[in-house]
Amino acid sequence: MPAVLSTHSYGKSGIRVTRVTRGTERHEIRELSVDVRLEGEFEASYTLGDNSQVIATDTMKNVVYALAHGRPAEAIEDFGAALACHFLDEFAHVHSAKVDLAERPWRRISVNGRDHPHAFEGGQGELRTASVTASRAGLRFEAGLAGLDLLKTTASAFSGFIRDRYTILPETADRILATEVQARWLYGRSSRVNWDDAHSRVRRALLETFAGHTSLSVQQTLHAMGEAALVACAEVDEITLTLPNKHRVLVDLQRFGKENTNEIFVATDEPYGLITGTLRRA
Amino acid sequence: MPAVLSTHSYGKSGIRVTRVTRGTERHEIRELSVDVRLEGEFEASYTLGDNSQVIATDTMKNVVYALAHGRPAEAIEDFGAALACHFLDEFAHVHSAKVDLAERPWRRISVNGRDHPHAFEGGQGELRTASVTASRAGLRFEAGLAGLDLLKTTASAFSGFIRDRYTILPETADRILATEVQARWLYGRSSRVNWDDAHSRVRRALLETFAGHTSLSVQQTLHAMGEAALVACAEVDEITLTLPNKHRVLVDLQRFGKENTNEIFVATDEPYGLITGTLRRA
Amino acid sequence: MPAVLSTHSYGKSGIRVTRVTRGTERHEIRELSVDVRLEGEFEASYTLGDNSQVIATDTMKNVVYALAHGRPAEAIEDFGAALACHFLDEFAHVHSAKVDLAERPWRRISVNGRDHPHAFEGGQGELRTASVTASRAGLRFEAGLAGLDLLKTTASAFSGFIRDRYTILPETADRILATEVQARWLYGRSSRVNWDDAHSRVRRALLETFAGHTSLSVQQTLHAMGEAALVACAEVDEITLTLPNKHRVLVDLQRFGKENTNEIFVATDEPYGLITGTLRRA
Amino acid sequence: MPAVLSTHSYGKSGIRVTRVTRGTERHEIRELSVDVRLEGEFEASYTLGDNSQVIATDTMKNVVYALAHGRPAEAIEDFGAALACHFLDEFAHVHSAKVDLAERPWRRISVNGRDHPHAFEGGQGELRTASVTASRAGLRFEAGLAGLDLLKTTASAFSGFIRDRYTILPETADRILATEVQARWLYGRSSRVNWDDAHSRVRRALLETFAGHTSLSVQQTLHAMGEAALVACAEVDEITLTLPNKHRVLVDLQRFGKENTNEIFVATDEPYGLITGTLRRA
Repeated sequence: MPAVLSTHSYGKSGIRVTRVTRGTERHEIRELSVDVRLEGEFEASYTLGDNSQVIATDTMKNVVYALAHGRPAEAIEDFGAALACHFLDEFAHVHSAKVDLAERPWRRISVNGRDHPHAFEGGQGELRTASVTASRAGLRFEAGLAGLDLLKTTASAFSGFIRDRYTILPETADRILATEVQARWLYGRSSRVNWDDAHSRVRRALLETFAGHTSLSVQQTLHAMGEAALVACAEVDEITLTLPNKHRVLVDLQRFGKENTNEIFVATDEPYGLITGTLRRA
Repeated sequence: MPAVLSTHSYGKSGIRVTRVTRGTERHEIRELSVDVRLEGEFEASYTLGDNSQVIATDTMKNVVYALAHGRPAEAIEDFGAALACHFLDEFAHVHSAKVDLAERPWRRISVNGRDHPHAFEGGQGELRTASVTASRAGLRFEAGLAGLDLLKTTASAFSGFIRDRYTILPETADRILATEVQARWLYGRSSRVNWDDAHSRVRRALLETFAGHTSLSVQQTLHAMGEAALVACAEVDEITLTLPNKHRVLVDLQRFGKENTNEIFVATDEPYGLITGTLRRA
Repeated sequence: MPAVLSTHSYGKSGIRVTRVTRGTERHEIRELSVDVRLEGEFEASYTLGDNSQVIATDTMKNVVYALAHGRPAEAIEDFGAALACHFLDEFAHVHSAKVDLAERPWRRISVNGRDHPHAFEGGQGELRTASVTASRAGLRFEAGLAGLDLLKTTASAFSGFIRDRYTILPETADRILATEVQARWLYGRSSRVNWDDAHSRVRRALLETFAGHTSLSVQQTLHAMGEAALVACAEVDEITLTLPNKHRVLVDLQRFGKENTNEIFVATDEPYGLITGTLRRA
Repeated sequence: MPAVLSTHSYGKSGIRVTRVTRGTERHEIRELSVDVRLEGEFEASYTLGDNSQVIATDTMKNVVYALAHGRPAEAIEDFGAALACHFLDEFAHVHSAKVDLAERPWRRISVNGRDHPHAFEGGQGELRTASVTASRAGLRFEAGLAGLDLLKTTASAFSGFIRDRYTILPETADRILATEVQARWLYGRSSRVNWDDAHSRVRRALLETFAGHTSLSVQQTLHAMGEAALVACAEVDEITLTLPNKHRVLVDLQRFGKENTNEIFVATDEPYGLITGTLRRA
């Protein structure tokens, strides 16, 4: 046999669960999509078709539903930890369980200026994410966000870059900067974290820095955003930001006898710049 | 020749345009996607390859950019009318011009509780739409919205429906009702309309009715929403609502020794009920 | 009450069904997505919340599953007719039932040059579609295809169009022509049709005409394709073609000291031309 | 300053390029999407907004276009290597350049049984992929495929797995097995590889093994497929397979008085099992 199975894992992805907490006055709703992924002693299922150590992925789905029941309207980090620990506690041959969670936000509908007790709008756009990994060494918590669209119409420049025979991009002192933020940050192992509050502080630092920063490049804005997040949330050890540069291309209107002083742009999806960086607490 | 060209039209779709209005204190941003569609005397391009009456779709795109320039941060209905009229005014052989517009909303980022003058978040989710048709008989204005996710956790029932040999759905007095509203409404030709205000009144009527209505079926909720829109906005002659029933399926937890009293659900994308209806002012 | 319910319909969409026909030697597989839509006397469900005439959309889904069982590996037109007739036959208050079907193709995997009896590849890309409407007046059959990508690298020109102050597109005698064909055709009511054979003849006519036609415009190619379909299939009364112009934009390489003689292009998704036309048998 | 920039990279993604090779008799067409990603001495752009070492991502795009010109209709591995080496050769401060390429296939349209010289169909579905990384240590070649849908209607079982209080999945000796293969394989550094031939041999091994293998689990099928690929292509050192289990759920027809002997299924998108594994040459 020429082959060695060097790494392997398996699990269930896209487990959607809606949790309603039915208070006497008002209802809470949380909608998640959960992925479960296990590593451990599953080689025989690959090499021999011996399933005696296999936890069916259908069972993983049921665990998500069953554990969601009876729990409070908690942060996704806590729910993820409960799930990850379940698999480690129940099965000695599981080495690690990774649970990825993504929550779509629902906002209460405002009726006559008052929040409605059980009717909601939203459910699209930005996601709050978490990734909880349980291993025999302990728990590891990452949190994040995805799908957060940000745009500024000025206070963004890009100049001084290398010019060679393939460079035609003009330098600019004033452009639109638009991105769809993907952020993931790692909490320190020793800290007790208020997940909702920490998430809110990191998110606010990212937004306010994006807004207030005078940008010389996406790279520089990324660094400023990451630094601000570390300042705003001492519980965070490390943050990774992925910022696509969602170009707004200035339209040449001179051909139609008009001067376009940064007013009319075309949004393009492809190609796009993609800038990433990880900042660690020094 | 066996074939007659019975109907035909052509145009440019997906023309994206970003308009920045640069005030001294603050900037406005509007991001649209525009479709232009013409009907008229274009038969010869189909039957003979004679392009002498063809306005190139690339030219349509340029018209969108050029007309966007220098205009105020107006409602999409007004921009659509300017575009549609351009083609009718310029070309005698155009019989009608239809312009569909969809606007993605951007909200100002709040920094220390104050709206930022030039930084924005959002850009996903709900769209504001309009469809302006210019013909030799005049202008026709439709407005609408799409991608508006609504959900209520209670005050929704479904019972009393036909039971036959293929019916297994249980009756329910209390279910989650979730939908993604698509609405289009037609303004009366005689009215002077404040487009932004009218859109806001229709939208609020749809949301508040969804929230407050005790639903016996999606059909009944649709009717109540449409009626409320007609009441809220006298300028509207007719409204069409399309409401997918985005099912939240109650999970059977009895198999795991738990009672699920409307707390744990699974969101499913397919299949989905699809309920439509058009209400006209009597 | 200010509102009149002028039109309404409802149904179930996205009903996916996989049918395996298990022969002794080999298996057949058909995978469909089905939409059912009913019109009839359903007003009271909208206006009064009276569901006594409502066939639950969940029941429609069950009918699709149940009727799929025991039938041969038939054409989607026949399955659609069985479904549409079911609702008309069972319920006197249903005025019309429209069934839309889309089939994803699976091809047998070739092993040592021989078709495998029960293993398949594919399942993406082009769809075969049908739309069967049953009313008290009889059955109406439309067939079609969608998602068929076609491209030719030459034998396509576009010139002689109107030039005005917004026109910058150069004339061209040689360009790439690419499209994603959506076609729908209507069968005559009197004809007995071999659905698979008719579909195959129309499809071949569309492809061969696209390939062989020397195109002066997308409009002209559309007309030629439609005409060829009517010639190839006498059972078809009418065909509607929707041809997006999926632009391949010639890249300016002169800036890099190179001459681009129709070799290097950029595919763009937006904006795109959109050409439609309906041809009827004269 | 509390933060250290621990890792960073940037580049251009979604660079689409269409290459036509215009022979006298027939044309070839290749359509790619290319991502370029650089690592190197770019810290100052992040920390100081100093762009003097930044190669603009717009320039990367131009390099793709310019280098595509004049090259033969080569394999994507060779084009990727030319691109990756360009950045390393031109810029001493670039430590590594990674180029990801994905090719959509076009097939010639058959007209009267003969391949057309310049008209093509297809362009959707399965992608051929490659990833070429150039560093000062040399070149690293990965190839792969994505979006390959496979399905077998029998010869697939799943039984003998762990049963606990959350397990309700019945054991089955005969089920549909469906997946969308994502495969990536690493070529050995020392080998001279005929890229097209190697890709074809790996692909055939994956398909034929999927078809012929009597599956006791997705894991076992994955292992068999990976092993067959290593056998079929000595140039490959390692292969990683990602196999989502695209469930076809047997429909309960007993409620409608029918017996469903593995004939009627529902395809579901979510949730899905996800099985991965990497096999190395021993």
